[in-house]
Amino acid sequence: MRHAVSLLALSLLAAPALAADATGLDANDIAAAETLREQALAGSPAWDIVESLTTEVGPRMAGTPADARAVAWAKAKFEALGFDKVYLEPVTFPVWLRHRERAEILAPFPQPLVVTALGGSVGTGEGAIEAEVVAFPDLAALSAAPEGSLRGKIAFISNRMVRFKDGRGYGPAVGARSNGAVEAAKKGAVAVVIRSIGTSSHRFAHTGTMRYVPDVPRIPAAALSNPDADLLVHMLGRGKPVTLRLDIAAETVGEYTSHNVIGEITGRELPGEVVTIGGHLDSWDLGTGALDDGAGVGITMAAGALVGKLGQAPRRTVRVIAYANEEQGLYGGKAYAEARAAAGEIDAHQLGAESDFGAGRVYALRAGVDPAAWPVLEKIGEVLAPLGVATEREGGSPGPDVGPIVAKGAPWAQLAQDGTDYFDYHHTPDDTLDKIDPKALDQQVAAYAVLAYLAAETEVDFGRAPAKAAE
Amino acid sequence: MRHAVSLLALSLLAAPALAADATGLDANDIAAAETLREQALAGSPAWDIVESLTTEVGPRMAGTPADARAVAWAKAKFEALGFDKVYLEPVTFPVWLRHRERAEILAPFPQPLVVTALGGSVGTGEGAIEAEVVAFPDLAALSAAPEGSLRGKIAFISNRMVRFKDGRGYGPAVGARSNGAVEAAKKGAVAVVIRSIGTSSHRFAHTGTMRYVPDVPRIPAAALSNPDADLLVHMLGRGKPVTLRLDIAAETVGEYTSHNVIGEITGRELPGEVVTIGGHLDSWDLGTGALDDGAGVGITMAAGALVGKLGQAPRRTVRVIAYANEEQGLYGGKAYAEARAAAGEIDAHQLGAESDFGAGRVYALRAGVDPAAWPVLEKIGEVLAPLGVATEREGGSPGPDVGPIVAKGAPWAQLAQDGTDYFDYHHTPDDTLDKIDPKALDQQVAAYAVLAYLAAETEVDFGRAPAKAAE
Repeated sequence: MRHAVSLLALSLLAAPALAADATGLDANDIAAAETLREQALAGSPAWDIVESLTTEVGPRMAGTPADARAVAWAKAKFEALGFDKVYLEPVTFPVWLRHRERAEILAPFPQPLVVTALGGSVGTGEGAIEAEVVAFPDLAALSAAPEGSLRGKIAFISNRMVRFKDGRGYGPAVGARSNGAVEAAKKGAVAVVIRSIGTSSHRFAHTGTMRYVPDVPRIPAAALSNPDADLLVHMLGRGKPVTLRLDIAAETVGEYTSHNVIGEITGRELPGEVVTIGGHLDSWDLGTGALDDGAGVGITMAAGALVGKLGQAPRRTVRVIAYANEEQGLYGGKAYAEARAAAGEIDAHQLGAESDFGAGRVYALRAGVDPAAWPVLEKIGEVLAPLGVATEREGGSPGPDVGPIVAKGAPWAQLAQDGTDYFDYHHTPDDTLDKIDPKALDQQVAAYAVLAYLAAETEVDFGRAPAKAAE
Repeated sequence: MRHAVSLLALSLLAAPALAADATGLDANDIAAAETLREQALAGSPAWDIVESLTTEVGPRMAGTPADARAVAWAKAKFEALGFDKVYLEPVTFPVWLRHRERAEILAPFPQPLVVTALGGSVGTGEGAIEAEVVAFPDLAALSAAPEGSLRGKIAFISNRMVRFKDGRGYGPAVGARSNGAVEAAKKGAVAVVIRSIGTSSHRFAHTGTMRYVPDVPRIPAAALSNPDADLLVHMLGRGKPVTLRLDIAAETVGEYTSHNVIGEITGRELPGEVVTIGGHLDSWDLGTGALDDGAGVGITMAAGALVGKLGQAPRRTVRVIAYANEEQGLYGGKAYAEARAAAGEIDAHQLGAESDFGAGRVYALRAGVDPAAWPVLEKIGEVLAPLGVATEREGGSPGPDVGPIVAKGAPWAQLAQDGTDYFDYHHTPDDTLDKIDPKALDQQVAAYAVLAYLAAETEVDFGRAPAKAAE
């Protein structure tokens, strides 16, 4: 690293100072960004960061003892990486705990099933639930069932998430997870089981949040692995009643205050203006949270650290945020946005991006900014192009934890990742370190370092609330 | 199927009857075998048989209630497939039961681990075992440790099985599973954990048998998934003592008598001479035993059924055997061989083959027969060649349940399967129906039908004990 920095220093001296154009960036800035890119590709600390998080903390579900260990880990890691300023901000949320989960077919062909409770689910009580299964091809079909038609039954939603590079199969499928319990309970069901919202054919059940609404009974909700959902479909195909035993112990117990953990590279000219990158620090309890979202934390910590090791800091501050409790309701992102709004700091946010889609390579840059700032994005895109990243003016969306501050008017960028395999591992025990290709991780660090550095180096304004109101 | 059989009948009428050569097979025989091959490729009942077994029985560990259900299922399936003669033969063995298995790192970084008890292991007792982990790169290193050096410790064997098409990575690795407990106990260890004997990077622990010996303490033995073994290696790499908590409840309880289930296509001229094909009916308890060995049962039942639907039966009897309890010590194969020896029927065995290597395509025919019978094998190989099957005069080995009768002098054949992925699923919860490609299964049915039919149609003798003694 020392050698590369020296090369950069040389290039800063050697390059003629060109006048900045509508991008607010000159040749020195581009040279510095290119150096960051090449440094990251040559080997970034991202994989080591994820290795550290998954080994020394592991699963870190919000509100558990591992949550506090993760916060301490993140603070220490920011400090070790040389960030100028490291601090915590409180995030409060209800605590959900998973104690036990089992399912088995009792009749006509007894078999155990691989199941997991959905986040937020109530338990089945002391005696478990034994009831006949009624299958629906999707949530809409369940919602269309007559009132009372599922009294005493377990509803089963069997539709399968479709695999896409951009993960767009998730949206149409995830309603079964979010709303299945409410829709089933409205019809009188005593529980709901869904085919996992995931693309894997391995025998892992995918957890994830579900919700209840007032005035509808709270019934247990669980997901079967894809092979187990297949098995249940095959068994139901025999035309005989299928009886399932569901035994879930889970509870929501009080509140917990965790923290967003923040590391900054202080801007040299405009320290009050910030560019944020980050990932979420919490994970589900089943895996070690390597992909979701150790990768995002590692990528953005590494990218920020590379920027911090430049000869001089960029004009604006680069803020790396390890968000608390994304999984159970974007609590970290919401708390961050609310704290900024309360402090009158929304306008200080020049651009926000989050890495929360695993460890697949970045293939596109998209953004939600003032059109006057597009030349900057185009220029950033030129530096990203050798990474295989296309600049796309349409589409995209902010990362989940960036959404809340975007809703308050802040501009955003997205470095879209190849998510072809992401939903094979998402929210399962199989989300572990070995699924990460260190070279792919370095490509992402390169992209985030370039984006963060150039967005912080330019003086061009990325747009404020009025420009964003139409979104 | 009816249409194809009619075509076969036509071909039998139309083909000129050629004199049989050293192969004992004429053009009509070859035409019939080719028809069987094409019928199987056009769609065999094998996948439906595996679907039925995995759906209607599922996991069927020897000695559990599901064992009896599997035997009843197999008898009914043979009958439904039109076998001439269906019968059971008793197989007695000790019963091992798995009740509970959990592992977690207690220090320095608390994390749960995915673990499974090895078949035959004792439990850890009421209070579980909490002890420091001492790692060894392989079984030899453990065996070389000084006496008493592991007193009060848990030994961990970290070597990783290597992936090969022919599965030859299994042999060098599996000693850690078979003998790890004995070697660890000799050094004073209180338990042994191994990296799973498997090639998957998914978070499944692979079970499988282990053994104890007299005069060495019986200590619990368990396997970690590959990602969990990686995690433990990473954690040990920190240089701090690692404490593991292992909680296994398992026991060996008395004896059980299950059955080999046998279906026959009675030979038209030499019914007392038999060609056997088969798979094993039992599975481990973790998966549904689709690949291990539902596939072998389905392939060979389907192949036998196709032979049975020919216009006339082959000269010799084709016997399809669904062996009991292969997994815990080849009990079915041993009982079969002993019963034949007791009845003086070893010499009646003209060729034995077993499908027990998953559902990958067959790529080679190998055999252990009298050299005088090689022209028959070569001729069979010609009919198999369009399936992508090469005839190999060297190498190979009989299937596990055929081994005991081969040891008593019977000749054998092997239809070697592509096992590249087999050890990803072997002995894990992930051994489920969706891992089977129905078209690949049909290719294997084609190969087994051709082999069984032609070996039963020829009058050439495949060799007896004297010819086999050198093996």
